[in-house]
Amino acid sequence: MPQNAVEATEALASAVVKGRFEDLPADAVAAVKASILDGIGVAMAGSVEPLGKTITAYVRDLGGHPQATVLGSGFRTSPPDAALANGAMIHALDYDDSLQIFSFHFTSFLLPTVLALGEQRGISGQQAITAFAYGLEAAVAVFRAATSRLDYDRGWHRTATVGTLAAAAAGAKVLELDVQQTRIALGIAASQAAGIRQNFGTMTKPLHSGLTARNGVTAAMLAQRGWTADPGVLEGPLGFCKVFFGDGNYDLADLHASLSRPFHYVSSIRIKKFSACGQAARPIEAMLALAKEHDIRPEQVERIECGINPSVMNILVHSNPRTGLEGKFSAEFCLAIALLGRKVVLDDFTDARVNEPAVQSLMRKVRKYADPEVPHHGGKGPTVTVITADGRKLCRRIDMEEDQPWPAPTERERIGKYRDCAKRVLNERNIQDALELTQNLEKLQDVRQLVAAISA
Amino acid sequence: MPQNAVEATEALASAVVKGRFEDLPADAVAAVKASILDGIGVAMAGSVEPLGKTITAYVRDLGGHPQATVLGSGFRTSPPDAALANGAMIHALDYDDSLQIFSFHFTSFLLPTVLALGEQRGISGQQAITAFAYGLEAAVAVFRAATSRLDYDRGWHRTATVGTLAAAAAGAKVLELDVQQTRIALGIAASQAAGIRQNFGTMTKPLHSGLTARNGVTAAMLAQRGWTADPGVLEGPLGFCKVFFGDGNYDLADLHASLSRPFHYVSSIRIKKFSACGQAARPIEAMLALAKEHDIRPEQVERIECGINPSVMNILVHSNPRTGLEGKFSAEFCLAIALLGRKVVLDDFTDARVNEPAVQSLMRKVRKYADPEVPHHGGKGPTVTVITADGRKLCRRIDMEEDQPWPAPTERERIGKYRDCAKRVLNERNIQDALELTQNLEKLQDVRQLVAAISA
Repeated sequence: MPQNAVEATEALASAVVKGRFEDLPADAVAAVKASILDGIGVAMAGSVEPLGKTITAYVRDLGGHPQATVLGSGFRTSPPDAALANGAMIHALDYDDSLQIFSFHFTSFLLPTVLALGEQRGISGQQAITAFAYGLEAAVAVFRAATSRLDYDRGWHRTATVGTLAAAAAGAKVLELDVQQTRIALGIAASQAAGIRQNFGTMTKPLHSGLTARNGVTAAMLAQRGWTADPGVLEGPLGFCKVFFGDGNYDLADLHASLSRPFHYVSSIRIKKFSACGQAARPIEAMLALAKEHDIRPEQVERIECGINPSVMNILVHSNPRTGLEGKFSAEFCLAIALLGRKVVLDDFTDARVNEPAVQSLMRKVRKYADPEVPHHGGKGPTVTVITADGRKLCRRIDMEEDQPWPAPTERERIGKYRDCAKRVLNERNIQDALELTQNLEKLQDVRQLVAAISA
Repeated sequence: MPQNAVEATEALASAVVKGRFEDLPADAVAAVKASILDGIGVAMAGSVEPLGKTITAYVRDLGGHPQATVLGSGFRTSPPDAALANGAMIHALDYDDSLQIFSFHFTSFLLPTVLALGEQRGISGQQAITAFAYGLEAAVAVFRAATSRLDYDRGWHRTATVGTLAAAAAGAKVLELDVQQTRIALGIAASQAAGIRQNFGTMTKPLHSGLTARNGVTAAMLAQRGWTADPGVLEGPLGFCKVFFGDGNYDLADLHASLSRPFHYVSSIRIKKFSACGQAARPIEAMLALAKEHDIRPEQVERIECGINPSVMNILVHSNPRTGLEGKFSAEFCLAIALLGRKVVLDDFTDARVNEPAVQSLMRKVRKYADPEVPHHGGKGPTVTVITADGRKLCRRIDMEEDQPWPAPTERERIGKYRDCAKRVLNERNIQDALELTQNLEKLQDVRQLVAAISA
């Protein structure tokens, strides 16, 4: 059948339903496993933040049959409420991974969706990987259909809007719904798709990930029970694409084209290396490289200069931070800790660390300036220059491809990050168990074994 | 302070927080009590529909601490899940009331919100009325700010989108949040506002009301726990009005103006008299009047003619209905049962009734035709003409104001409707108890008494 003879929602649902673990390319499996490990780590780190404690207390007080685990505290509740809490916790620190081409934080809701429904059903590791992968595949196909970023410009948080369809697709896959049921799940999800950027910078941004997972789980569970919705919600005249992308701003042929070349986007998945603002990543990388290559010691430094994109001056806005949170948006702080510690870890972003005399002293030697030659995205990177007391001028610039704001972490780096995050909650034994279970996820008989390791 | 010096979200939150029962005009109190009674009735009727049974089974299986009653089946669960089920059940038959100027089904989510949180806290009847009234007031103020219907035309279901803010406002009022917390609740709600018209005609339309109530409850409960969101979500550059109404399509001065003249819209509240499509209401009214005035017996009828707005020909589309659902969208069926029964009740809309020989025979005598002189909304109403075998030609036309598709039911009619609906679940004793408690709601010490009456 020619592609255009199949309506978009049916095509998408069919791709999700028919996709098998065996069809996944090796790089997609590896990427999903890496994302799951990273998601577990950042959920643990998020669980002890005020946000994590609040959302955990909230769902605990709602009750719910113990079917799905709330990460961090390890109690169980209903799948929608577990998904709500876990999604918010994964995105709590804005330290979770993303699909850079769409600035799309997919693990923040796909992992909670797959775990919440998967734990209840006792699915295998292969099923979990497959549901996660096809949930992401569904999102990419919908994104590809958008021919502009009008939805984003209007104020929509794409992680939450397109994400709700993706979460429903992943949920449908876990529940092994058929094509018609999956179309209905997508229809129900489209009526829950929400989340506006006005709430960025508040707890409600991470909440979007939790709501997205909760709504996807709800859509899949209701579709399983015979609920009805429009079965053509992507292409319908008042459907998802019309409502969010707007007339003339989408082309469903591109959705079909995307599905015909699955998992082509895997190289755009990026695990975050630092829990700072993404705009600080390249300056940090440059400073880490300089410090290592030239063995720069803080007392040798006369001053540090850093040229960044002019509009980023208003993003890395805190020249004189006083809190860990401000430190995330401070080039001065990020460069200081990179030089002092020769690494940048989650524990650096505390009020105490920001106010250490050595940090404060070094921060005062940093001068950031607007460099019009540095583009906002990709291409030529910011330049970091260290001028030493003995007159040396050491320069380093980290350039990157258009859609990648920082180099991919090595396996060692991303496992180090996982450990760094997970140790906030788990003991060494559990950290190691969860690591090995995730690394061998395709061999796992029952995801409840993994959940048990991260519940302890 | 001049109105424009107060930002819109703050002004709205202040109005909600400061509003007292004593400030409510008598007609508003009477309208809220009538809406609550009507909502209880239609929830009972909806609870035994397939939709009601499915959503009830769904929330029952989720579990949840028993704090809020699911109407119809009478078990208790968490406030968000009870609100979800009750909202869907109230809107299940599209038989619930609305604010006609905005086609806004406010009781479908305000009542579940107020009951779910109110039962948990044991609020008084006055508090329940007040929270309901100010939730509606909040919605009207937001609607007034919209200077076009672009949001509706784009595909948004206004009951669900604006409704989420209103539900959050009502929830905040029940929880006695302060102005700042109420602003946060509105902010959280704005990130959950969703619901598209593509799903009209499926179970997902009534689900919108449930989701709206659930999301409003969630927003209020999280705000109470210290969650954060943008405190100026109405007026923010990427806030609710920008996202839904669109640049240039709203004027927040009109929101302030609306708040300065509270409860001016009460006369536009309309309780639905018939569980048929709203477009059938005037033909039904005309036929009931004719049948009564002229004591028309079916065997005297040679034919019936009914002129309706041309575009309504595609709404009242079933000339030869075979199911109760099709009968709701059939002028022929509605006119036949009105003449046969001299009343139109919920139980008429069954497959069995549609297929009764007397009904089928009379339906074949009805001819509807497009009358270009009948506008789509309000104004000159459809004409019903009965031509009798003895040559009489009896005509009747029901005209109405612009925003009112049918005359308001009398007190007797609306109580009759409540009884007709409630008897599907409740016994006569409970029907009477709930009626009296609602009629005297401002004297009730604890809404749990009312909930107990409708749980039995």
